[in-house]
Amino acid sequence: MAEFRHDPVHRRWVIVTVDRTRGPEDFQVPERVPDEGFCPFCEGQESKTPPEIYAVRDGSNPDRPGWKVRVFPNKYPALSDTHEKIQRGAHGLYDWINGVGCHEIIVEHPHHHVLFHQLKPDHLELLVQTYRARLAALMEDARFRYIMLFKNHGPTSGASVNHQHTQILAMPVIPRIAAMALATAREHFHQKERCLFCDLLDQELADGRRVVTENEHFACLVPYASRFPFEMAILPKQHNHDFSGLEDNLIRPAAEIIYQAIGRLAKLFGDLPFNLTLHTAPSTGQSAKRAGYWGTLKHDWHWHIGIIPRLGTTHGFEWGTGLFINPTPPENAAGFLREVQL
Amino acid sequence: MAEFRHDPVHRRWVIVTVDRTRGPEDFQVPERVPDEGFCPFCEGQESKTPPEIYAVRDGSNPDRPGWKVRVFPNKYPALSDTHEKIQRGAHGLYDWINGVGCHEIIVEHPHHHVLFHQLKPDHLELLVQTYRARLAALMEDARFRYIMLFKNHGPTSGASVNHQHTQILAMPVIPRIAAMALATAREHFHQKERCLFCDLLDQELADGRRVVTENEHFACLVPYASRFPFEMAILPKQHNHDFSGLEDNLIRPAAEIIYQAIGRLAKLFGDLPFNLTLHTAPSTGQSAKRAGYWGTLKHDWHWHIGIIPRLGTTHGFEWGTGLFINPTPPENAAGFLREVQL
Repeated sequence: MAEFRHDPVHRRWVIVTVDRTRGPEDFQVPERVPDEGFCPFCEGQESKTPPEIYAVRDGSNPDRPGWKVRVFPNKYPALSDTHEKIQRGAHGLYDWINGVGCHEIIVEHPHHHVLFHQLKPDHLELLVQTYRARLAALMEDARFRYIMLFKNHGPTSGASVNHQHTQILAMPVIPRIAAMALATAREHFHQKERCLFCDLLDQELADGRRVVTENEHFACLVPYASRFPFEMAILPKQHNHDFSGLEDNLIRPAAEIIYQAIGRLAKLFGDLPFNLTLHTAPSTGQSAKRAGYWGTLKHDWHWHIGIIPRLGTTHGFEWGTGLFINPTPPENAAGFLREVQL
Repeated sequence: MAEFRHDPVHRRWVIVTVDRTRGPEDFQVPERVPDEGFCPFCEGQESKTPPEIYAVRDGSNPDRPGWKVRVFPNKYPALSDTHEKIQRGAHGLYDWINGVGCHEIIVEHPHHHVLFHQLKPDHLELLVQTYRARLAALMEDARFRYIMLFKNHGPTSGASVNHQHTQILAMPVIPRIAAMALATAREHFHQKERCLFCDLLDQELADGRRVVTENEHFACLVPYASRFPFEMAILPKQHNHDFSGLEDNLIRPAAEIIYQAIGRLAKLFGDLPFNLTLHTAPSTGQSAKRAGYWGTLKHDWHWHIGIIPRLGTTHGFEWGTGLFINPTPPENAAGFLREVQL
């Protein structure tokens, strides 16, 4: 038997299997793609990448060894920052915008073989600071409406380079999923003058069945209507719409909750492929004013991180409908993850 | 450089690469998963499946050899038809429905090694008739709001059995993508008293750059804002919302356009993995009346088939935003497909 569950943020139904459920031992973790030898992301190969935009360094010179985290433009960007203006147009029923954007690579560690789940909270702090700094810088560019920070790890995740890295894509449109979730959260705030995510957090923390781990400032949950087995969400307990404005005292707790979430997943599955996505508010300031979504944005949105293990494949059914079948009830997944000793 | 393109049905942006584009030779087709020996879908193994619901037979008995197409309930259904009533409820902010549904398997040919692209129009006619018959039967069940017919073919498509088959899932909810597309098409009709898909077809046939092939009754296009390289859509030229009411004189032309579309793909890529999805109107009749979406449904919707080649993997970015990056401009894909000689 199964159950339909409704996700109140994304307004989508998922099918959750409640008999013949799948536990951690029922998934086959795909093997790592072998390394191809030379890696431009490694310390010492700085001349093989575009010049760096940002780095965490102890006094060493830019584009030289001696960094801990390093950011540079993607050599093969999905969108290109040619300092062009945004152009918008139509062909009959269709609309287009020229492909202006920024596509950055954040190399998370100088050493090739260090995996994300092996990064300790001290190092993850540097990464969280880097994320905040790059988001804050890109928010200043009035051409962009939305900035997506994401990480592809492992063979089925879309990663093309094994060396651990995060990507940022700043773009002149708000993608559909984000636009819909924002509209839903805004409607909730307008009706109730409460944040939808704060309400969800209250309910989840009181219930407890889907809580994986928490600290004073953050909670890590398995969402009620998860699309994927062992999917997780990390939310700040105190309302905040914008990751780029993360307060200094939240950097350590953020690093610790990421360490806990990824570490628990790695204890259950080893080096599994996953995607991590940061869902912060659309660009604020001038950009939001022109696009007309500023309004109550500060109250509507609540930033969060999504973690999607890539343990299976997606079916035609899921592509055609947006309706996912999840063979691991979120309560079971949270139970397995909660029991892990780190 | 790239270009954002807007899909007017699904209201989503995609990024289409316009330089460094990828042609058919730039994709690696994943290898077929080897067969595991015994196959319950083969002719002669009828006792290994649940009893058949429907078959195309020349006078032979049910659940015996002698069929050309055969339909039975999925032994491992995503939703189960226990003749239960639909129950709907809430837990705080969340909603649920019990997992009632029908999940059927349509085996497309009695022989194990015949592939979909090897089926000739004469055999595809039987398949189109079977699709119509099963959809019409399931439309009668007032519990269901939506019936999804889909096909997973090949290793990365979600297929778990090599023997060619289609699946049908009838369910008590309208999935989000279908609900959104229906709302968009309805709004278009209410404003203009014209069908959105008819308008799109007019524009595409006049333009011609994205047309793959057509016959008197159907057109096969590469959508302007395709998410995937070599994605195709098949639409009837004459407005019709409901595949289950397909007129007899359209069965042959439907079989021929499917043959043309899949055949051209196979000429370019060999036995590639793909998904095929049928987007017909939500269930009509009592079901639609209770759910409140009947209204102008006949005018709003226009049934179509989607074909998605599974040539790559999806990235964290795409899961997090719903924004896809397509490295093959639809005009180029249509050009390659149009040039194929079948």
